[in-house]
Amino acid sequence: MRVLVPKKSLADALARVERIVPSRSSNPGLSLMRIDVRDDALVLSGSNMDVDIRSELAADVRGQGSYAVTAHVFGQIVRALPGDDVEMDLAENEMQISSGNYTTKLQLVAPGSAPVLSFPDSHSAGIDARLLARALGSVRYAAAVADFQAVFRGVKLELRESHTRAVATDGFRLAYYHLDTPTGLNADVIVPARSVEELLRVLDEGEVALQLDGGQLSVAHDGYALNLKLMDGTFPDYERVIPANYPVSITLPAARLSEAVSRVALMADKSANNRVDLFVKDGQLQITAEGSFGRSQEAIEVLQEGTDSEIQLAYNSKYLIDALAPSAGDIRLRFSGMNASPSVVNDLGDPGYLAMVVPLRTS
Amino acid sequence: MRVLVPKKSLADALARVERIVPSRSSNPGLSLMRIDVRDDALVLSGSNMDVDIRSELAADVRGQGSYAVTAHVFGQIVRALPGDDVEMDLAENEMQISSGNYTTKLQLVAPGSAPVLSFPDSHSAGIDARLLARALGSVRYAAAVADFQAVFRGVKLELRESHTRAVATDGFRLAYYHLDTPTGLNADVIVPARSVEELLRVLDEGEVALQLDGGQLSVAHDGYALNLKLMDGTFPDYERVIPANYPVSITLPAARLSEAVSRVALMADKSANNRVDLFVKDGQLQITAEGSFGRSQEAIEVLQEGTDSEIQLAYNSKYLIDALAPSAGDIRLRFSGMNASPSVVNDLGDPGYLAMVVPLRTS
Repeated sequence: MRVLVPKKSLADALARVERIVPSRSSNPGLSLMRIDVRDDALVLSGSNMDVDIRSELAADVRGQGSYAVTAHVFGQIVRALPGDDVEMDLAENEMQISSGNYTTKLQLVAPGSAPVLSFPDSHSAGIDARLLARALGSVRYAAAVADFQAVFRGVKLELRESHTRAVATDGFRLAYYHLDTPTGLNADVIVPARSVEELLRVLDEGEVALQLDGGQLSVAHDGYALNLKLMDGTFPDYERVIPANYPVSITLPAARLSEAVSRVALMADKSANNRVDLFVKDGQLQITAEGSFGRSQEAIEVLQEGTDSEIQLAYNSKYLIDALAPSAGDIRLRFSGMNASPSVVNDLGDPGYLAMVVPLRTS
Repeated sequence: MRVLVPKKSLADALARVERIVPSRSSNPGLSLMRIDVRDDALVLSGSNMDVDIRSELAADVRGQGSYAVTAHVFGQIVRALPGDDVEMDLAENEMQISSGNYTTKLQLVAPGSAPVLSFPDSHSAGIDARLLARALGSVRYAAAVADFQAVFRGVKLELRESHTRAVATDGFRLAYYHLDTPTGLNADVIVPARSVEELLRVLDEGEVALQLDGGQLSVAHDGYALNLKLMDGTFPDYERVIPANYPVSITLPAARLSEAVSRVALMADKSANNRVDLFVKDGQLQITAEGSFGRSQEAIEVLQEGTDSEIQLAYNSKYLIDALAPSAGDIRLRFSGMNASPSVVNDLGDPGYLAMVVPLRTS
């Protein structure tokens, strides 16, 4: 069994699969990567139980067969190879890898020791990869990290006949991204936020094929196939908590606001939710913070709507900064009221994005 | 008291002082930075007990006085300032920092709470900063990290009438850098390797002024003054252990050897000293390693002297790679014998550098 493949394409594919496969696991089979050699293709696959991944590379192949190898060792070696091409000679117990003047003999394991994975042969739906990446990448931050109900650690995908929408919330803030483009599927699913990150690394240009079956969302794109295990549970009825009326709103560049909040928040106490106060009056936004080392403030001229009112609210500065990060240009920050009434960020250059932040209760 | 200073020069000076001053310390005074304002200059100073540092910046000053502030908070704020210039208004308890639309009021502490530091007014000796940096930067890696006799965690500086030499060793490897340039001092001192790192960050172009007094080496350069506390103890008689005769030597580019050793060593077991084997015969260097995942090898054509002999030696790959790192071009690797007889690296483009590595005992 002999395989000849360009180093760069092997290293890229391996890096993606290696990210998923745990380098240590109480189940030793889980740290194995399966190698399948077949007609003109080298196929690498692995799993972390939540995400299965398969990468298929065009290769110059003689023979066919299936093998398994410790993923992270194989990955380290391929990245370090000196030549532009890699020759792999696979035998039952050993794979010889040669490149330039370098040769290594790496132990192989029976392919049955690696997880048995199954990827769908056909896909019933699809969507543009860049659109899906923009939607998922814009909301992923709002999912909870830990210590929360499981469902808050996931990203909801509304795959409807008329639209596609990604939503994440941790109960204190929420983000959604709405696409008018449907996928052809009709279901709501919740994908673990960590699995969303792995999918984002694979998404490039072109179409993503989708298939929903047996508690998993299967994705095929650009030589990669992924099965994303879905989460059980009921996602909160988030639309109900987004306010309908906003008496005051301000418009300014997202980066200008984000930088000012970061700067002022340096004086905020971390133990007090990194609190910053926003005060809006007469077309001016005043940001202040106070902590054990002193206090700081910054003023920004803004375009204000609802000029007969003034607004004073306190926020966790981290939540404001996260909500602004997906926006490159001007945003509108809308205030539904005082004292812990939710505020909403709209991206004026990208109407699909909406973020909601619940201010801190101050009285 | 008002000080006007360009943001960039303040941020650069602060960053250097802030690196030294511990952000947390059981002695709260130690995390303070002292600020002295005097004729056209802003002076920042601090200490970590091993290194005292003072930075003097040209500034537009009105008034004079001395203050102290928590160093890492001041540093964070200055780095985040939005404008090109910084205005500081210092009062007894509070410093107002303004830049662009941003203002902060940072609490000050009585200057007596900060460490009392004293830097020499004049210096009796000196050397070119680039030369000193090259010497110290080339040997620092060979000092021990921990778990060793204290003196092995230092860099010896031989400040002699005829030459200057930096030496470091951890007992398993050694590096020295010899300069024909004397400093004007005549003493051997040992500087903690960590303090050497801080000095290296400050060294730029031009002259470094030196003064030796009261158990410390004082350095003045480019607006900075440092006191480096010296180590007690006797540095080993290292010249005695450098072999006089080398029956075999090979010449090749440092990077070529370093990359090949790194690559082959991927298969070596970390628990077995990252062992790689070098075999030299008939103008060819063969590098091999073996571990629990398999084995690897790489061959390199080299210029060999002593061609009637062959050499087989085992090394900790990390030690070989470290010894090669200071060299940009060709090196000569000289072998004094078999089985744990020391090997020496000479940089053909930089005769000041010498590294010695003791091979692993294999029988």
